Amino acid sequence: MPYFDAASSAPLHPVAREALRAALDEGWADPARLYREGRRARLLLDAARETAAEAVGCRPDELVFTPSGTRAVHTGVAGALAGRRRVGARLVHSAVEHSSVLHAAEAHAAAGGTVAVVGCDRAGRVGAGEFAAALTPDTALAVLQSANHEVGTEQPVAEAAEACRAAGVPLLVDAAQSLAWGAVEGPWSLLTGSAHKWGGPAGVGLLAVRKGTRFAPAGPADEREAGRAPGFENVPAVVAAAASLRAVRAEAVAEAVRLRALVDRIRSRVPELVPDVAVVGDPVRRLPHLVTFSCLYVDGETLLHALDRAGFSVSSGSSCTSSTLTPSHVLKAMGVLSEGNVRVSLPTGTDEADVDRFLAVLPDAVAGVREQLGAPAARPARAPEGASGDVVVDALGARCPVPVIELAKAIAEVPVGTTVTVLSDDEVAALDIPAWCWTQGQEYLGERAERPQRGAAYVVRRRV
Amino acid sequence: MPYFDAASSAPLHPVAREALRAALDEGWADPARLYREGRRARLLLDAARETAAEAVGCRPDELVFTPSGTRAVHTGVAGALAGRRRVGARLVHSAVEHSSVLHAAEAHAAAGGTVAVVGCDRAGRVGAGEFAAALTPDTALAVLQSANHEVGTEQPVAEAAEACRAAGVPLLVDAAQSLAWGAVEGPWSLLTGSAHKWGGPAGVGLLAVRKGTRFAPAGPADEREAGRAPGFENVPAVVAAAASLRAVRAEAVAEAVRLRALVDRIRSRVPELVPDVAVVGDPVRRLPHLVTFSCLYVDGETLLHALDRAGFSVSSGSSCTSSTLTPSHVLKAMGVLSEGNVRVSLPTGTDEADVDRFLAVLPDAVAGVREQLGAPAARPARAPEGASGDVVVDALGARCPVPVIELAKAIAEVPVGTTVTVLSDDEVAALDIPAWCWTQGQEYLGERAERPQRGAAYVVRRRV
Repeated sequence: MPYFDAASSAPLHPVAREALRAALDEGWADPARLYREGRRARLLLDAARETAAEAVGCRPDELVFTPSGTRAVHTGVAGALAGRRRVGARLVHSAVEHSSVLHAAEAHAAAGGTVAVVGCDRAGRVGAGEFAAALTPDTALAVLQSANHEVGTEQPVAEAAEACRAAGVPLLVDAAQSLAWGAVEGPWSLLTGSAHKWGGPAGVGLLAVRKGTRFAPAGPADEREAGRAPGFENVPAVVAAAASLRAVRAEAVAEAVRLRALVDRIRSRVPELVPDVAVVGDPVRRLPHLVTFSCLYVDGETLLHALDRAGFSVSSGSSCTSSTLTPSHVLKAMGVLSEGNVRVSLPTGTDEADVDRFLAVLPDAVAGVREQLGAPAARPARAPEGASGDVVVDALGARCPVPVIELAKAIAEVPVGTTVTVLSDDEVAALDIPAWCWTQGQEYLGERAERPQRGAAYVVRRRV
Repeated sequence: MPYFDAASSAPLHPVAREALRAALDEGWADPARLYREGRRARLLLDAARETAAEAVGCRPDELVFTPSGTRAVHTGVAGALAGRRRVGARLVHSAVEHSSVLHAAEAHAAAGGTVAVVGCDRAGRVGAGEFAAALTPDTALAVLQSANHEVGTEQPVAEAAEACRAAGVPLLVDAAQSLAWGAVEGPWSLLTGSAHKWGGPAGVGLLAVRKGTRFAPAGPADEREAGRAPGFENVPAVVAAAASLRAVRAEAVAEAVRLRALVDRIRSRVPELVPDVAVVGDPVRRLPHLVTFSCLYVDGETLLHALDRAGFSVSSGSSCTSSTLTPSHVLKAMGVLSEGNVRVSLPTGTDEADVDRFLAVLPDAVAGVREQLGAPAARPARAPEGASGDVVVDALGARCPVPVIELAKAIAEVPVGTTVTVLSDDEVAALDIPAWCWTQGQEYLGERAERPQRGAAYVVRRRV
């Protein structure tokens, strides 16, 4: 059964499994101890650190293992900010960072720090110039991902790192999504990664802090991992993580070419196969294995269930999915449609035939959800004779994608030049109604807040 | 080769290994996802939480998994203190807690909080009454271990928990050393544990926070593990941890009886086999598998190496061992000899014959180190005719156990009633010289600080 959500967690790489099995026998003891079991664990840990450092492009003594990529980000951000406390309390990050960065920034702000957020274009790409312009003299730290986890867009990290160096500001690169594919170029100061994203086991992140970077570990002291990652070292998992990173790197160039072609196929075929769909993210400067698209008039969670029943495991940045009710901050920052959002991220070794099967089942899955929701079947025809415009559609209490569906139905009934006003208290409407107008060639006139608890009124003029 | 350091890390239990193997296949995906692999991981995680909660004696929704026991302590202490910020900023803990508690307390003090430390008796036992007396109205949190990790002494946690309840103060019990043997009794509020201590894998700690306990997670937010343990859940390791906890518990009663007898043999035989040795820790109210003794005139690190060469892996709380140069804070708080300290902690399943072999090789190992260091062979004889007393021994620059060895040699040369003054700049002398006097029946008159950088002068009067 094809699993297409490698960006959440990749299946365990065979090399990781084998290394873990061996290291459970050899590396379970405390590497701080002097007896043979301890020395053996220490040797394994040292060797894993060498391997991981080589893959990251740093010295072994610059790299520590953390319990997760999230913890690496939290520790890295807090430590770098504390290390430069005297310089200032400004943290700069892009609008499309992973939630772990956003949460670290919120904690910094709650503690009295300031946070500056650099936006992105509609492809999700952060401008190197805008990023550089945000580096004020009181900036303690800048954070930029190597590539976006939701839409796959690569960020200009090398240029950002050069700008940071010129400004004397350390750059932390969140390389969680790209480390399987190669080292991060440029003079970055800190780098984070997460083993289960590259086929290593859960429970292992990594944090590199290059020499010369001021760093003051926050929280209680601990002698392990150079004082940067408290708690008993998870040697077997670390060994498996390092071994699998080396293994995926050995296959990376060839596999990137192969998966890039499969993703290109999805990028080009989906809009041909499914009406009213928008493929998002940079088409060229992107991760090889990841593609995201949004489907109008579709509830993301229902679509995910439909695809799951059809045998495909994919993810979604839609607000309508999972436990969170807010739309993906990434799609929001990009200003693109979030409804019916599907992220496909192919694990290494993905079979071409599975991609074709996915393309074969997707149209029916989308059509099924649309039918279930009563979505409009096609682009609006001419309005009925004598129809009056400037109508108001009350979608209060309805969750996405219903407000957009109601809008699309109403637009078909009013003459060109007149307006439809949608009342909605689902905050996603603020993102999806403008995005719908943009994809459908209609004119978005803006929104106005309604009475408290009554959401907003979104005004759209029919153009076509 | 016998491994006798279960208190540092127990070898992986066969049940843990098997559960881990299976869960690597079934539980590698993101348990927050809706597709089948995610649902499977969620089911495994939920089941593991049920199992662990049952063993701990709490509700599943009161228990979260952390990346280590250390992280559980750090998170638990910080969260409980933050949750009771309005009540006060006083943290109470015993003098013999694990370093993770001490470090959490240091961080609290550095942030402006106050810390009260409750002492222990010579057996390492904290008085329930003294503990209760420390609970002032502004006490935000009290911390007490279930049993000591270095000497095995059990603490009066049930009484302490009752006292805390009466005072309206939450009690955090660090149960890292005892969870394999049983649940912690009493109305505790928070509890922490560490899987690799009970034969589970590294990378898993647990934190229970009973309903009604005020708790405000510190640090960046994260939606996983009820917001109390950021980062991707390590489902395979958690499954293995829970399965092995259930397994060791099933064997606990019988195994405790068996290991208790083996430890009793060590406790009684070591002083018979080795001269000038002190077995420390409570002889009755103790962990079944752990015993600690200190050997006069011995360098702990050298003794550990000698035992390692003889095939035995043991630990030491001596200052002379491992990377840290300060003596064990536990032995210091107890006021017992720290030199030549050996901790034996038997893993479940330890063979009786291995314990006997250990007792067979120990005397020669100790004698060898003593010979190497030029230790006095026996108790001091009568001083030579015409010897003068009140001598000064300059042991400046010498590391433990040399100052004590020099003292023992000098005592043999002075008449009863006169004094030997030892100059030493090794801070361990402050612990070991009084302890030596106590074990040897000599009179410790006290110490006085010498000029800065010159350590102290320790004055001993010959009595026997």
